[in-house]
Amino acid sequence: MSAEFTRAESRDVSDSREAETEGHLQEHDLVAAKAPRIAIEAVMPAIDQGRFAAKAIIDRPVRVTATIFADGHDVLAAAVNWQDAQGNARREPMQLVRPLGLDVWEASFTPRSLGRHSFIIEAWWDTYGTYRDELSKKHQAGVNVELELEEGRRLLVAACERSEAELREALEAVHERFQAMGSPSERVALMLARETAHLMAEADARPHLARSEMSYPLEVDRREAEFASWYELFPRSESGDPDRHGTFKDVHRRLPMIRDMGFDVLYFPPIHPIGHAHRKGPNNTLVAGENDPGSPYAIGSEEGGHEAIHPELGTREDFRELVRVAANHGLEIALDFAIQCSPDHPWLKEHPGWFSWRPDGSLRYAENPPKKYQDIVNVDFYAKDAIPSLWLALRDVVQSWVDEGVRIFRVDNPHTKPLPFWEWLIADIKSRDPGVLFLAEAFTRPPMMARLGKLGFTQSYTYFTWRHTKAELTEYLTELNEAPLRECYRPNFFVNTPDINPYFLQSSGRPGFLIRAALATLGSGLWGMYSGFELCEGAPVPDKEEYLDSEKYQLRARDYAAPGNIIYEIAQLNRIRRENPPLHTHLGIRFHQVDNPRLLFFSKGLVGKEDPVLAVVSLDPFEPQEGGFDLPLWQLGLEDDARLAAEDLMSGHRFHWQGRHQWLRLEPGQLPFAVWRIKRSEG
Amino acid sequence: MSAEFTRAESRDVSDSREAETEGHLQEHDLVAAKAPRIAIEAVMPAIDQGRFAAKAIIDRPVRVTATIFADGHDVLAAAVNWQDAQGNARREPMQLVRPLGLDVWEASFTPRSLGRHSFIIEAWWDTYGTYRDELSKKHQAGVNVELELEEGRRLLVAACERSEAELREALEAVHERFQAMGSPSERVALMLARETAHLMAEADARPHLARSEMSYPLEVDRREAEFASWYELFPRSESGDPDRHGTFKDVHRRLPMIRDMGFDVLYFPPIHPIGHAHRKGPNNTLVAGENDPGSPYAIGSEEGGHEAIHPELGTREDFRELVRVAANHGLEIALDFAIQCSPDHPWLKEHPGWFSWRPDGSLRYAENPPKKYQDIVNVDFYAKDAIPSLWLALRDVVQSWVDEGVRIFRVDNPHTKPLPFWEWLIADIKSRDPGVLFLAEAFTRPPMMARLGKLGFTQSYTYFTWRHTKAELTEYLTELNEAPLRECYRPNFFVNTPDINPYFLQSSGRPGFLIRAALATLGSGLWGMYSGFELCEGAPVPDKEEYLDSEKYQLRARDYAAPGNIIYEIAQLNRIRRENPPLHTHLGIRFHQVDNPRLLFFSKGLVGKEDPVLAVVSLDPFEPQEGGFDLPLWQLGLEDDARLAAEDLMSGHRFHWQGRHQWLRLEPGQLPFAVWRIKRSEG
Repeated sequence: MSAEFTRAESRDVSDSREAETEGHLQEHDLVAAKAPRIAIEAVMPAIDQGRFAAKAIIDRPVRVTATIFADGHDVLAAAVNWQDAQGNARREPMQLVRPLGLDVWEASFTPRSLGRHSFIIEAWWDTYGTYRDELSKKHQAGVNVELELEEGRRLLVAACERSEAELREALEAVHERFQAMGSPSERVALMLARETAHLMAEADARPHLARSEMSYPLEVDRREAEFASWYELFPRSESGDPDRHGTFKDVHRRLPMIRDMGFDVLYFPPIHPIGHAHRKGPNNTLVAGENDPGSPYAIGSEEGGHEAIHPELGTREDFRELVRVAANHGLEIALDFAIQCSPDHPWLKEHPGWFSWRPDGSLRYAENPPKKYQDIVNVDFYAKDAIPSLWLALRDVVQSWVDEGVRIFRVDNPHTKPLPFWEWLIADIKSRDPGVLFLAEAFTRPPMMARLGKLGFTQSYTYFTWRHTKAELTEYLTELNEAPLRECYRPNFFVNTPDINPYFLQSSGRPGFLIRAALATLGSGLWGMYSGFELCEGAPVPDKEEYLDSEKYQLRARDYAAPGNIIYEIAQLNRIRRENPPLHTHLGIRFHQVDNPRLLFFSKGLVGKEDPVLAVVSLDPFEPQEGGFDLPLWQLGLEDDARLAAEDLMSGHRFHWQGRHQWLRLEPGQLPFAVWRIKRSEG
Repeated sequence: MSAEFTRAESRDVSDSREAETEGHLQEHDLVAAKAPRIAIEAVMPAIDQGRFAAKAIIDRPVRVTATIFADGHDVLAAAVNWQDAQGNARREPMQLVRPLGLDVWEASFTPRSLGRHSFIIEAWWDTYGTYRDELSKKHQAGVNVELELEEGRRLLVAACERSEAELREALEAVHERFQAMGSPSERVALMLARETAHLMAEADARPHLARSEMSYPLEVDRREAEFASWYELFPRSESGDPDRHGTFKDVHRRLPMIRDMGFDVLYFPPIHPIGHAHRKGPNNTLVAGENDPGSPYAIGSEEGGHEAIHPELGTREDFRELVRVAANHGLEIALDFAIQCSPDHPWLKEHPGWFSWRPDGSLRYAENPPKKYQDIVNVDFYAKDAIPSLWLALRDVVQSWVDEGVRIFRVDNPHTKPLPFWEWLIADIKSRDPGVLFLAEAFTRPPMMARLGKLGFTQSYTYFTWRHTKAELTEYLTELNEAPLRECYRPNFFVNTPDINPYFLQSSGRPGFLIRAALATLGSGLWGMYSGFELCEGAPVPDKEEYLDSEKYQLRARDYAAPGNIIYEIAQLNRIRRENPPLHTHLGIRFHQVDNPRLLFFSKGLVGKEDPVLAVVSLDPFEPQEGGFDLPLWQLGLEDDARLAAEDLMSGHRFHWQGRHQWLRLEPGQLPFAVWRIKRSEG
């Protein structure tokens, strides 16, 4: 007996015939005959065939597809049954996707609430559809259909018999009309009528009903999961004086400026007390001076751990006020969740069983090769006393900040903490507030990057920071648009971070910052920048991807009105993003022909109902680049000589393109990119 | 609580810690901490993540791969546990595939018996591997490793404690040597020694042991499942006289000839009694003359059904003798399993409950659009009385022919019979004889073609017959070499069948037959031809893909020595196939550059240890074609100016190519293809 038949799987839930039991009949004979006759394959959206939840956004349609087929040539029917987190269930009929050939069916539904949704696919034999199909063909071919009409009448009678109330009455009325009719062609017309088909579908016994092998989970997030602009700053640098530690109160005066630049999320590195032991000095030196503030990632001191606020930043009430005021400016505060501890973290004394001590009573300091964190030690999630108390304590830390109104967490190095821990923690937090978002700060190998998205991280840092050539950008953005990443991985394109001063920007000057800002803002619904980017800061520690005099180890005061800044351009780009729905996601990007390897030409929203956006970005911060490019007219259903209404979204200039072939020149000293909106409706 | 954690799935089977139960602790906290820490993804070979069995061949290595990773930077270990149909289990350690970057691990094992095998993947924390790695790096960096040596000693002691007998003694001996050593570098050498690593691996507690989500099934077939040459004939045509019905005895004199052409399988269309009602006449006419034999696919008469032999072919003893004699010639008889019935089939009277009767007491005749089979009716697998008696009766039919020594079945139109029926029937038959092979004769849409392979058909008819251009052939053969078809679908390239007289061959003349023979024999391990092909027969029913005067409806006598035949070339091609292992499968094909769109240049076995085969086939049966082509030297690890020893396998001529660029001309009047073997070892 084959293994498949012992496995619990999709069931044929049609009438469970009582099989005639013969003497030599074994159990498997019965099981096989009850196995689903209809195959349901390749269900999407699904991650690892339903092991993890695919990602969706509230109020945006979810397109479900599946390959559905069975033996023979009869007509099938299919539907998606979906339900929300509260268990409210709905059904959407599926349609066979034309053109034919691959048996792909589709349906769309739009989730209207947050949290864990699920769907299953059902398919069954469409007996009346098959009958109509045959009757129609034979009737058109002029064949005598007396026999078919009698078959139809019997289907009608059977449908009456299994129906009740109004439906039964309606079907009986059809039957009476059928009986009263004299001519076969009248009867054919009645049997083919839409109303008859509708009633018969309602009365359908759904023979050979098959269900997809499982219920596919779908995590519905709020819009900010896919569309948001992040601004990162160190509050301690916001005093305006490099010798005075900044506070939450100091951040207030920055809020209008950040909001005016068009940002939605204001993200702070850890705000907790900083340890003293092995504190780092400026530029990651191993010995700190007396007044050096230390790395905020060395969390914990005698003043508290992950639940506490660094006293120099202000009080808890100061933090609450900042969250409130920021919200009034349309800015949501995001916090860092970095699990590591400084050697002074209270947990080392209170919970020594959460750590893995070495024979000499020391702890191994943290490393994320090639980086070394001598001021940090890690908990051991599987240490003797860690389960479940450490896991619960960490969950409680996150929950405590959720309780303070923080609903976005940037998670530091999640790939060095256990996968089941994250899957549990995220599900646990979201079970109380499905609007909480988690950004995974993992820079590691691709399978782990994807897995963090699968197990629940809302969005993720990416390789964007290291993709610069036309080939690299095209390949990477295409990969993000395809399964499996499309279903599980929402990219947040950070142009820089306190940890990453990209080599490209170290020497590119202002045009390079504009190039990266354009690529990030137009390429992904999610993008982020760390303060200083708008001032085109790029001075490195020599030969390293690190900032010189990094804020990770010292206070920095900046002149945010310094000449040469790109604040205006960033504000413009963020405004363009807000006003153009195709830019609210990384999905739907297409690359187009341009005759210059240093120009990247792409569109967003070419398929759909919104007005699409076109962009050409020069990848060269030094020299002007020009070239011919082809407007994607045929994809818009237009002829090669069509007239196309466009708007230059940076300048507001409106004009018409005439014909497919166009030419453009981008000057790095002016604007190294162009972005247009196409009027779908106007010629 | 998230759905994932309630689902039964891969388990972390490491030490089941008793979690400390706190007051507010809910069940899911415990479950999450016991979930597998190590991710095992993308296990191959697998079909639909293990729902169906992947295909393998006895005595050929099966390469298993998986993406395996976990949090952090520690070293992991993994193994494949596999077992055969008798439950004998073995373990193969897996290795990380270099180069790194994707966390892919691999192992190979070679099944030595037929039938349903299975494998699972296990992965665990390689504690000692991680330790060695760190010790080695630090020692090489000149760091003081006293602390690491003490950690190693403790690992050694713990390993002793959990080991027994000889292993324990050996580990204790290592510990004693360690203690007796004076210098740290001696101790480092001992801890890094291969023997120590070997003992520690043996004593490994395998912490965080994770198992793949399921046991992956693997169907191991005999060699003929993937490599065989099929010859099809109608025994009734073998009398040599168009007016005398041929018999099994007549077939005997053809056996040496067929064997000399290099065929392994001799396949007969149905050999059962033929019905009289609605019997078809010559060229598919609806009325048969008195002496017309009818289509052998109209199975069943008063002389019996599927279990019976058509009396005009001979007796059961004649059939048995033919099977025996054919086997002595190295030919295996394959039979047709065509489930349909003629209206005279005994089942209509004996088991009316197996059929779906129309209101007027008639049965619908069979159709496979656009073809109509007025002489055939179909059983209804889900009719009231069909379960399980019809299913069992059909199984018994197949078994009865297996009992007669037939172990290969060509199954007629399986896509019009229920999928669960086939999955059950094939598993049932193979549970008694795993060497029985089933060829699916389905020509329908791709998902069904693949599904039949997935559910158990050993091999399948293909779209090859309709692939002619360079682009079509390249695309199709590439698709067959890639997942998912690679795992589930073994293509049998028939150049023609009684149902398919390809348009290409109707007008191509002899060169076209040579072209298609070369493509089939060199393209796939499995190929087949229907008699007449070797005589370049191609006369069609006008504008149809049907043979004129088809043997399906009348007797045909042929002169197998007729001039212009391609018997010699077919024999050569089959010999070349036998002698060159890369040609024993459709897998491993690669396409190469040739500067002529009418020339197809491909190789088999370029990767591996066998000598590879190169072939260039002209796709033009009318004009000579020539062009430059590039030898795949770099794929063989050779420089562009290398000297390559080659043998022309059709002529036996041996020569050397010098350098990458070569030129060739193929004359349709001579030989429209070239095939060479490359000597991997000789320059």
